[in-house]
Amino acid sequence: MQNFTFYSPTYFVFGKDTENQAGEYVKKFGGSKVLIHYGGGSVVKWGLLDRVKASLDKESIPYVLLGGVKPNPRSGLVYEGIELCKKENVDFILAVGGGSTIDSSKAIAAGTVYDGDFWDFYQGKTITEALPVGTILTIAAAGSEGSPDSVITKEDGMIKRGASGDAIRPKFSILNPALTQTLPAYQSAAGITDIMAHLYERYLTNTAEVEVTDRLIEALLLTMKHEGPRVIEDPNNYEARANIMWAGMMAHNNSCGVGRTQDWNSHNIEHELSALYDCAHGAGLAVTMPAVFTYVMKHDVMRFAQVATRVWGCQMDFTNPEVTAKAGIEALRNFLISIGMPKNFEELGAKKEDIPKLVDVLCNGDGRPGSISGFVTLSEDDCTKIYELMI
Amino acid sequence: MQNFTFYSPTYFVFGKDTENQAGEYVKKFGGSKVLIHYGGGSVVKWGLLDRVKASLDKESIPYVLLGGVKPNPRSGLVYEGIELCKKENVDFILAVGGGSTIDSSKAIAAGTVYDGDFWDFYQGKTITEALPVGTILTIAAAGSEGSPDSVITKEDGMIKRGASGDAIRPKFSILNPALTQTLPAYQSAAGITDIMAHLYERYLTNTAEVEVTDRLIEALLLTMKHEGPRVIEDPNNYEARANIMWAGMMAHNNSCGVGRTQDWNSHNIEHELSALYDCAHGAGLAVTMPAVFTYVMKHDVMRFAQVATRVWGCQMDFTNPEVTAKAGIEALRNFLISIGMPKNFEELGAKKEDIPKLVDVLCNGDGRPGSISGFVTLSEDDCTKIYELMI
Repeated sequence: MQNFTFYSPTYFVFGKDTENQAGEYVKKFGGSKVLIHYGGGSVVKWGLLDRVKASLDKESIPYVLLGGVKPNPRSGLVYEGIELCKKENVDFILAVGGGSTIDSSKAIAAGTVYDGDFWDFYQGKTITEALPVGTILTIAAAGSEGSPDSVITKEDGMIKRGASGDAIRPKFSILNPALTQTLPAYQSAAGITDIMAHLYERYLTNTAEVEVTDRLIEALLLTMKHEGPRVIEDPNNYEARANIMWAGMMAHNNSCGVGRTQDWNSHNIEHELSALYDCAHGAGLAVTMPAVFTYVMKHDVMRFAQVATRVWGCQMDFTNPEVTAKAGIEALRNFLISIGMPKNFEELGAKKEDIPKLVDVLCNGDGRPGSISGFVTLSEDDCTKIYELMI
Repeated sequence: MQNFTFYSPTYFVFGKDTENQAGEYVKKFGGSKVLIHYGGGSVVKWGLLDRVKASLDKESIPYVLLGGVKPNPRSGLVYEGIELCKKENVDFILAVGGGSTIDSSKAIAAGTVYDGDFWDFYQGKTITEALPVGTILTIAAAGSEGSPDSVITKEDGMIKRGASGDAIRPKFSILNPALTQTLPAYQSAAGITDIMAHLYERYLTNTAEVEVTDRLIEALLLTMKHEGPRVIEDPNNYEARANIMWAGMMAHNNSCGVGRTQDWNSHNIEHELSALYDCAHGAGLAVTMPAVFTYVMKHDVMRFAQVATRVWGCQMDFTNPEVTAKAGIEALRNFLISIGMPKNFEELGAKKEDIPKLVDVLCNGDGRPGSISGFVTLSEDDCTKIYELMI
């Protein structure tokens, strides 16, 4: 195991009706003027925004509103948010929505107290200062409610990049599984896929002797395997939603990823897809992961055989472990298809002829060195072959 | 799943040589005058105390020393520490040792800023204010490095009780697995047993639909099953020590115990043994757990069958699940014996004739109502029978 530090100071408030405590927690964490940042339709339609406003009113905390966050959140709205926060002297940002809204909120939080262009953080600068952020989560997926990460797409060139820093870890996150019951099945499935990707990205490591984190990752994958189909079958299954919601947080606050190298090539390869086609990140990952894993499997056959047996229940083939490793990848693929995720470029809305462009931005965009690194370093040629496996 | 809040703000610094960063972290968390609290021999003998002092000197942070913490830490030393902290205007407590030292430090931290008798907290009052505490852990066991809990024994009557509160969660905890390599095998095994008990106490729940926390607990039990014997075989196995150390923290910071009722009857029943005979807490648990589980198994046979198959690799007996449930308890008992733990009263140094006294303090001490509650409510008669199973 490698040396590491781990810090996850977010105060989690989990369960039914907890969104009504938003005002109380904003107060507890020192907010006196709030930006409520959200997406659009569903937060308004289902009355959540009204309940949050009422909760702030109850504590006599003033607020301004900024809606309009889209999936794969854009830099344009971030700039708008920063300007609004400065003008209105906002000192607390309350994200009401999913990963996109939370990531956009984190970007505004960092940008408001930074003299330069917030995009600097998305080109490698660590975020060390930010306005406090609280979240009310409406989809279990990105794990942004407990993470120090944010992903934003820059309109100019549609470049999707991540930033990080303990300063943007939410002060509190309100997790009410019932709020996710109104999600369309496709979005629920995309969220489930994203959570599983966060787990696989950590599982694919070159660090030896990581039994405890291997086992924790497998535990969360087993949870997704058990609870995912229950949510697709019955969107109102509160208990299944609850198990997924806690698994989603645990999958990405890094308690199961400490002390080991991680991969993140599936995320990198997918980011180009959702940036170009504006598809759901989870849907992109459903197509990307089996392709990447098939391509890199031989780098560590036993690791893929391990997850195949421990999570997917495959019988170990002791004379030919590669058979087991492949069976595990197939089991993942079939699982993702079974919950309604796309299986190839066509179903995703991606185009074969765009592959050279995808590969170029992926490997050379934003100063990258003609390759991407992770579990395996992948050249332009490797990435081309991986995208071709998705056709 | 039940509603819950979860808060684990401790900054963990994990890995080789990290104790040399103690001064840096005391400074980061605002300490300007430190009490270094420790046990005795090994912290001095192996040079750890000198390295910690040097690290504080490097940051020009003054300190006072208070050694002498014993296993099953006593209230007498806590009173002494409180007096010392008040007299010396200490504003930060640095615990260098295992769970006993950390628990004693937490008690001093709470007592120093409290007008009344610190024992109030150990009779049910929540700790809401305390001096900041940092820890340098020397044994993976109690999980106190990441928990809001403290257990102290009051000399008057040898009553062992726990207190709790977010205010005594450590600000930082330095976890260097190499520091645990000098432990005698018996102490290592007792630590492993304590960690496994923290997991079983959470596993035994009456809450339905807790797949994610079930799986996480099982993951940590599987880790202990794999790494425990490796540490007993080779005390210098850093990697096994590292996996156990992170598992020990995760087992007790409650990320795997949220949203579900928990048991803690094994701990309660054991506390009377270590209070009376001053045996190692883990050793007491090794004798207690199989007895308790055997006695309460019929309350939820399928739960015991689940852990038997998922953790201990028992074949499920579908016509008679009780067979599997029992096999799992036997597998746990045999595992604990295999790492060198005692199996009965005699090996523990406990006496059959003390059972009435043990039961009386357990069920009636400190205002208890003639029984203890948890997974199953246990009367004096039940507790008598459980102690008798340990003979």
